[in-house]
Amino acid sequence: MIKQINGGVCAAKGFSANGIHCGIRKNKTKRDLALIKSEVMANAAAVYTTNLVKGAPIYVTKDNIADGKAIAVVCNSGNANTCNKNGVEVAKRMCEITAKAVGCKAEDIVVASTGVIGQELDVTPIANGMEELAAGLGDNSVAAAEAIMTTDTVLKEIAYSFEIDGKECHIGGIAKGSGMIHPNMATMLVFVTTDCAISSDMLQKALSEDVKTSFNMVSVDGDTSTNDMVSVLANGMAGNTEITEEGESFNKFCEALAGVTRYLCRMIAKDGEGATKMLECKVTGGKTEKDARIVAKSVVCSSLFKSAMFGSDANWGRVLCAIGYSGADVDVEAIDLSFASKAGKIDVCKDGYGIEFSEEIAKQILLEDEIQILISLKSGEGEATAWGCDLTYDYVKINGDYRT
Amino acid sequence: MIKQINGGVCAAKGFSANGIHCGIRKNKTKRDLALIKSEVMANAAAVYTTNLVKGAPIYVTKDNIADGKAIAVVCNSGNANTCNKNGVEVAKRMCEITAKAVGCKAEDIVVASTGVIGQELDVTPIANGMEELAAGLGDNSVAAAEAIMTTDTVLKEIAYSFEIDGKECHIGGIAKGSGMIHPNMATMLVFVTTDCAISSDMLQKALSEDVKTSFNMVSVDGDTSTNDMVSVLANGMAGNTEITEEGESFNKFCEALAGVTRYLCRMIAKDGEGATKMLECKVTGGKTEKDARIVAKSVVCSSLFKSAMFGSDANWGRVLCAIGYSGADVDVEAIDLSFASKAGKIDVCKDGYGIEFSEEIAKQILLEDEIQILISLKSGEGEATAWGCDLTYDYVKINGDYRT
Repeated sequence: MIKQINGGVCAAKGFSANGIHCGIRKNKTKRDLALIKSEVMANAAAVYTTNLVKGAPIYVTKDNIADGKAIAVVCNSGNANTCNKNGVEVAKRMCEITAKAVGCKAEDIVVASTGVIGQELDVTPIANGMEELAAGLGDNSVAAAEAIMTTDTVLKEIAYSFEIDGKECHIGGIAKGSGMIHPNMATMLVFVTTDCAISSDMLQKALSEDVKTSFNMVSVDGDTSTNDMVSVLANGMAGNTEITEEGESFNKFCEALAGVTRYLCRMIAKDGEGATKMLECKVTGGKTEKDARIVAKSVVCSSLFKSAMFGSDANWGRVLCAIGYSGADVDVEAIDLSFASKAGKIDVCKDGYGIEFSEEIAKQILLEDEIQILISLKSGEGEATAWGCDLTYDYVKINGDYRT
Repeated sequence: MIKQINGGVCAAKGFSANGIHCGIRKNKTKRDLALIKSEVMANAAAVYTTNLVKGAPIYVTKDNIADGKAIAVVCNSGNANTCNKNGVEVAKRMCEITAKAVGCKAEDIVVASTGVIGQELDVTPIANGMEELAAGLGDNSVAAAEAIMTTDTVLKEIAYSFEIDGKECHIGGIAKGSGMIHPNMATMLVFVTTDCAISSDMLQKALSEDVKTSFNMVSVDGDTSTNDMVSVLANGMAGNTEITEEGESFNKFCEALAGVTRYLCRMIAKDGEGATKMLECKVTGGKTEKDARIVAKSVVCSSLFKSAMFGSDANWGRVLCAIGYSGADVDVEAIDLSFASKAGKIDVCKDGYGIEFSEEIAKQILLEDEIQILISLKSGEGEATAWGCDLTYDYVKINGDYRT
């Protein structure tokens, strides 16, 4: 059994964190530099954006954890360090500055950046602020979570405890993500820490499997970022026997990891740029799991359906439309569809055709801020869930003048 | 040489049209039923939506023109006749009613519907209005174009004349399309008429080739409709020798067809739901034409970039981002990017990296209502153009309460 606890990325033994305003962002009340550190060397795993245009930090992090090891994470907001000629140089410099302050090698740092694309990142504020940042390392997961936020309106952190061979383990994560959210094989910025002892290989395996049904099933606007990254550091300080193969312990770890990632997925969807409500599309009865995933994601990605949800309009035809063009192998005349929220549940479509329903009750259900779209494809055992949000005036507003 | 002329779908010899309000829509000032008729039997070709969920009229039209022949088109707005149990029955009934009024067989009618999905279409107003509609057949392309509009704000028609073996031929079309626009191998509703003599096979070949670079390169919101259809009727009344194979005459016909379709594409993009400006993305230097097409379409589909254009913000990083996740085979470090409009042209990115540019001049260029995004991939000879529009508050507003 996994149990929710406090502490975010500092919940696991031996991890400390901090976040400060160093001056990358003009707004002095907004933290813009985060640091997470393990007392001892940790096993590391990460997945990255599949966008061909990649942020410079992605390349540097990939190199740095090629040996499966890392001891700290440094991340700035306000500038993505992407499409800049000196990008890799600046990302490496960030690692050197961090390494010097925390007493490790530059090659043991996970580095990440988020913000505007195509403006050179000045490393000076980072160099100037690093001493203060490192000196303040402590139980400050909240400060780190704040420092990686861009258009996010709420900070995103979570932690769980779980037990492996009698040892209490902990896992926690922070995330940022609000716009340019449509991860593909990787995701927005998510940093997870755990004191569970697990080999680098098994850690990577757990993470790579997990993202297929967690972050890769979230979409805010269909745009896959250039800087997506999820990384996990596992420092083994819980004292359990190191997990080196599949089995009960690995499954327990995966369950705890899924607890963290699913929670952060929902938070990211709910905090989608301009969003007023979270959409959770649950698909059952797909011919395969892949078909179910394609359908679920297509529905939460439809601009038309997202707009209808903003208006609390039970325009279920748009769900059918999105299923139809998704590319999944579905039997159109077997589709059942319901909308649900804490206000209730209403069936709107049966066997691919509309059925009579009360528009008033539907409206009540859709006025809530968490909406479930329940789709039964009645063609097999494939199941999937995808998360998204409504499309609102504010999404347009936020992105019409993001740089200014 | 092709020459623009007046007359829309009535420009070609032997074609008449009309549009009336019959009562499908509540607003009595809005026409909702259109009819186009040829004096003599015409060769017919059509392409349809690839959405697995298809409007009932699609199935009926496919059957009706399986023999390559049709003499009239009937189309209503206000109801898509999709996802209704009695949909095919109603679409066939529409053909029977039309056939009786114009004196032909029900099987020689192209039938189409557009509007809300999943509400039964009552055929009574159509039956009641058909006499008036048929009696008013004449040089009324405008009335027909009005009658197929839904959220469209401008009517869309165009016509051209051209010459084949000394005979003057004419081709004209009307279109509707504003939201749920992301055609795939087919498109929104477009009806084209021509008096050029061309065999059904060659007509279908010309149309199928044309849509790849015309309607399939338009996107308003990424949602592929259930009712997309482009059809062409060619009645041969221009008196040219029938085109039955590839060659000079076929090429001339294709050129004239492309004139009509490209014009309607631009009109549809410009009239995208809520749009304040049209985006035209021109890609050159792709490794293949397919790569160029994928890149062009990805850019005009990016919600983030579309929002930036609404704000006249030269956020070129979002163009690079959309190229990167498009799936096309591109060399990121070879990408050049400029923005242009009638106010001028400005280079913003060279070899994949940002360059210095005047934000003020960029703003001036992007304040215009037709923006060109010029992308040079410098990796081959592939070229493509895609059309889209900005994402605005009004798109959200229109779609937040479309049904009410």
